[in-house]
Amino acid sequence: MIDTPMYPLLDTVQFPEDIRRLPIEKLPQLCEELRHFIITQSANNPGHLGASLGTIELTVAIHYVFDTPNDKLVWDVGHQAYTHKIITGRKDRFATNRKHKGMSGFPKMCESEYDAFGTGHSSTSISAILGMATAARLAGNTSQQHIAVIGDGAMGGGMAFEAMNQAGGEQANMLVILNDNRIAIDENVGAMSQYLLRITSSKSYNRVKKGLWKFFNFSKFLTQGLSRLGNAVKGQIVSKSNLFQQLGFRYFGPADGHDVVKLVRILKNLKEIQGPKLLHIVTVKGKGLQLAEENQIAYHFPGNFDPETGELIVPDEQNMPPKFQTVFGETILELALKDGKVVGITPAMATGCSLTIMREKLPHRVFDVGIAEPHAVTFAAGLAAAGYIPFCNIYSSFLQRSYDQIIHDVALQKLPVVFCIDRAGLVGEDGPTHHGAFDLAFLRTIPNMIIAAPMNETELRNMMFTAYTEREQPFAIRYPRGKGVVVDWRTSFEKLEIGASKLLKQGKEIAVLSLGPLGNHVTQAIDMLEKEGINPTHVDVRFLKPFDKKMLDEICNTHRTIITVEDGTVTGGFFSEVSEYIIAKQYTTKVFPIALPNTFIEHGDITNLYKSVGFDVESIANCIRQNFKL
Amino acid sequence: MIDTPMYPLLDTVQFPEDIRRLPIEKLPQLCEELRHFIITQSANNPGHLGASLGTIELTVAIHYVFDTPNDKLVWDVGHQAYTHKIITGRKDRFATNRKHKGMSGFPKMCESEYDAFGTGHSSTSISAILGMATAARLAGNTSQQHIAVIGDGAMGGGMAFEAMNQAGGEQANMLVILNDNRIAIDENVGAMSQYLLRITSSKSYNRVKKGLWKFFNFSKFLTQGLSRLGNAVKGQIVSKSNLFQQLGFRYFGPADGHDVVKLVRILKNLKEIQGPKLLHIVTVKGKGLQLAEENQIAYHFPGNFDPETGELIVPDEQNMPPKFQTVFGETILELALKDGKVVGITPAMATGCSLTIMREKLPHRVFDVGIAEPHAVTFAAGLAAAGYIPFCNIYSSFLQRSYDQIIHDVALQKLPVVFCIDRAGLVGEDGPTHHGAFDLAFLRTIPNMIIAAPMNETELRNMMFTAYTEREQPFAIRYPRGKGVVVDWRTSFEKLEIGASKLLKQGKEIAVLSLGPLGNHVTQAIDMLEKEGINPTHVDVRFLKPFDKKMLDEICNTHRTIITVEDGTVTGGFFSEVSEYIIAKQYTTKVFPIALPNTFIEHGDITNLYKSVGFDVESIANCIRQNFKL
Repeated sequence: MIDTPMYPLLDTVQFPEDIRRLPIEKLPQLCEELRHFIITQSANNPGHLGASLGTIELTVAIHYVFDTPNDKLVWDVGHQAYTHKIITGRKDRFATNRKHKGMSGFPKMCESEYDAFGTGHSSTSISAILGMATAARLAGNTSQQHIAVIGDGAMGGGMAFEAMNQAGGEQANMLVILNDNRIAIDENVGAMSQYLLRITSSKSYNRVKKGLWKFFNFSKFLTQGLSRLGNAVKGQIVSKSNLFQQLGFRYFGPADGHDVVKLVRILKNLKEIQGPKLLHIVTVKGKGLQLAEENQIAYHFPGNFDPETGELIVPDEQNMPPKFQTVFGETILELALKDGKVVGITPAMATGCSLTIMREKLPHRVFDVGIAEPHAVTFAAGLAAAGYIPFCNIYSSFLQRSYDQIIHDVALQKLPVVFCIDRAGLVGEDGPTHHGAFDLAFLRTIPNMIIAAPMNETELRNMMFTAYTEREQPFAIRYPRGKGVVVDWRTSFEKLEIGASKLLKQGKEIAVLSLGPLGNHVTQAIDMLEKEGINPTHVDVRFLKPFDKKMLDEICNTHRTIITVEDGTVTGGFFSEVSEYIIAKQYTTKVFPIALPNTFIEHGDITNLYKSVGFDVESIANCIRQNFKL
Repeated sequence: MIDTPMYPLLDTVQFPEDIRRLPIEKLPQLCEELRHFIITQSANNPGHLGASLGTIELTVAIHYVFDTPNDKLVWDVGHQAYTHKIITGRKDRFATNRKHKGMSGFPKMCESEYDAFGTGHSSTSISAILGMATAARLAGNTSQQHIAVIGDGAMGGGMAFEAMNQAGGEQANMLVILNDNRIAIDENVGAMSQYLLRITSSKSYNRVKKGLWKFFNFSKFLTQGLSRLGNAVKGQIVSKSNLFQQLGFRYFGPADGHDVVKLVRILKNLKEIQGPKLLHIVTVKGKGLQLAEENQIAYHFPGNFDPETGELIVPDEQNMPPKFQTVFGETILELALKDGKVVGITPAMATGCSLTIMREKLPHRVFDVGIAEPHAVTFAAGLAAAGYIPFCNIYSSFLQRSYDQIIHDVALQKLPVVFCIDRAGLVGEDGPTHHGAFDLAFLRTIPNMIIAAPMNETELRNMMFTAYTEREQPFAIRYPRGKGVVVDWRTSFEKLEIGASKLLKQGKEIAVLSLGPLGNHVTQAIDMLEKEGINPTHVDVRFLKPFDKKMLDEICNTHRTIITVEDGTVTGGFFSEVSEYIIAKQYTTKVFPIALPNTFIEHGDITNLYKSVGFDVESIANCIRQNFKL
């Protein structure tokens, strides 16, 4: 008896050309095999499951219709691109998804020619594809097609609007596919999202949609009467659809994003239409895995789960230290309950940063502003100008989006906005687009900023309390992804002295100055070294700005070597601060940095990444040992 | 005989309460007096004339109707706020507009309680006012009104869209006044701008507008039937107006922005309507000065002119060195004529950066993307990914808006985008929002970047040629506002060695390492010092990244003191680079920085500002002298 192969169709597919050879009626089966493949693989190797389950049919249809990689396809954010990766030569590497040295979880130009543009952050795809479409036009290449796939959440980002504004104004030849699953990572918010919902729930849409797609099938008619069709479609479907039309795009849709055969027909027709087009499709995040459909936020990135039932495999975390984000969430709630002026702001990351904890109790004082980091900061500045106490939580790498707003709207006006910067330092599997490598450096250069980095959960808590109490100027607190080290972190609040470090251990010869949670590795390393008779001083620096100069003066007068420890890039951050000061004061103390190299760090598990950059306990111990012997 | 006072009404006005005492029919005369006052004053003391002439009636109407400063009013960008300043207690200081220690050219919180939020950069006003409106709602303050005034150019910025998206979604209680003068600094571009033009040129608008404003006068009727009114207005005026309605705003307009009496009536009525409202008014930039109306780009900031005729007083610049921006403009045209792949990109600053020179000859290869710095960079990245050679010109302080896109879309992917960064260093009268103080620091921390700063026009030209030739990675060239030093700058292209400095003068004891145009002051200072027997070495560093380590090794081995010279902040830039390297190599060389302090630098003429931060020749000479004697 011969076993039925598990993936009879998918097994024959390595590249899109293999799919293009299939008859259209086979595509639904291919999609089901892909769905099973993604679920099975992701069950044991966690990934961005929900978004990718929602785009299987779309991805197959795009590659079936368009001549990738000659035609250019850009995925916004890239969470949803697993099918794309699997059918563009990376099926065999999919088991290494997000692993160290393995396949990236996001599209990446250097990984495949099918990845026309690398992504990770939101709302960039329309700008990038417009650049490529413009290049094709200038080169006189009229056959190349340009497609951006963007979610309804990402469409609310300002950059996407800026790109639509140019593309519509110039009548660029490109197709934007709006993948409307009615959710970002959290529930989508904002007027645009409500607008899309009105379209898809309107009676007129539901009345005509069946007729429309029949209409689309007559592509001969279509190519004969393009302009008439445009108007017909516009007129017939949904009069509300014209937000995009007003921006110069021809709007088509909404269409069922899980009907691969219809999608193929629609895309074939759209291929023939010149100018900027927007195809609005409706999909279900987590499609095909019931629990994922039912709980879309949890299954955005579910971790391990049972591939049959979808049940999450939740690790036992009793008596474990909490995540830093939980400490943030619990602490802001505590402050908010004390003081009615405390408000929380997140650009679409309420769950990821645990602002949900406060929202549950005080929903009217938590603001999810959508994927809109620049606006989030100036909105916070407006609240601060009116006497409120905004805690604005933005991941380190996304805070790069708000750089001008921090300078121009907050720091220049000395407004007391509290920035809680999650995902600072290396984040692991999400890789270089998401590592928080630059915040110490780019914030340090801004006048009027206070910059703090807690070594543990208690310090995070006290820094938040200090920021809450101080309120003279902007106050940034940056902390990492993942867990801390203190199980009993819920101590009573202590106001810290701004700019004051904390001596953890008085030793001699060498002083290790650590900023942030790597200090815990330093402590462990020093414990190891004691047996060897190496006895360095250890200071928890706490504040990068203002910096504890008094402490540094003392250290320089009593130690011959300083090792600076920070989980940010070596160029411009803590090591720079110490170097500048020592140069200015003409001390002869040697300084050795433990920091990220000034390169982009790849993705992978934290353990391996830490080893690769010398952040593990053993490497830190070696560094101290070597400097001791020098 | 008694002289008729020149400003019989304006003389009685110091604060808005003085205006509120006037009968409505006096307001047109007050506006004419204000217009005369602004024109007369600006003729001899250059300022942002055009925008402010366009908003006189609007400003008077707002302060007449609303209870400022209790009601909150935020001006987007702030170019247009001269009337606001004059009638909020600063009439007597208006003659010091933009002068050192004088009145700021932009709204500034610390200058007046009427300046609810400081501005300078574009598209921030809706975010800020939404923050304040939210604060009022949380505080249960239902009487406070919140008004943002934003231009049609600024409305195309992504941040404005993000703020509209939240405000519309939450149905925040606020009024956005869209001041549509159909121009930014240059001609406005993009689909939004075309959309607004369609509204204001539509037949239905022109047919009903007269009737509409009559309708508005019946405020008793209005307050009785608010919701009906909204629909009536919506329905009657312009069906196309619903882009804003789709974003959750109630749209009113378009209205004549120069009819102060009608504006007062409209605003009074709108005050009674809850929720997010957008009032679209049409104004003329430069209104009331014929030449300014006819040539709106030149009169955005006209310099000195004849107050009677408006004729520009053009200084004789024959045999003067060119502006750096002209060298950029001429050089990119030269490169573009050589190579069809060269394209130019500007976010709405074609005139300001002189990309107009290329646009005149090669219009299809110059892209004004609107006020959209984040998009501009990723659009450039898309072009670079497709093999084109984009020169993306963005002012230093506006480049802060693109920080994430430089990191995430360009540097991470090593795409060869050329960044030409104008207005680097101190810009003078525009002040702290516009000084390019941070670019050296925030770019230096980004891996894969090349960062160059020319000392003069010839170097700018050769750096552009080098960037054009190299194309291995992103290449930033930052140069200042204003003129260079070389009259005959149009030399043939020379490819520079990336990262190599240029020895200008071999001396001893002290080495002055200068980055950028301050090197010319160093040269002059050294000339002065020669008579005193002080003979320092002078190196034109040219590249901040990669840095010329070989040169620094030699200097450290042969000199006892280094003076670093840069027109950027002392924290994180060139001085940091040198400090880090000297610390890493354990040199004992002393280093002294000439750089901007890590504070926000005020506005004023460059001569005074340079003196205040030690950038003038005499201060530099003093610094060298002191270090020589040490």
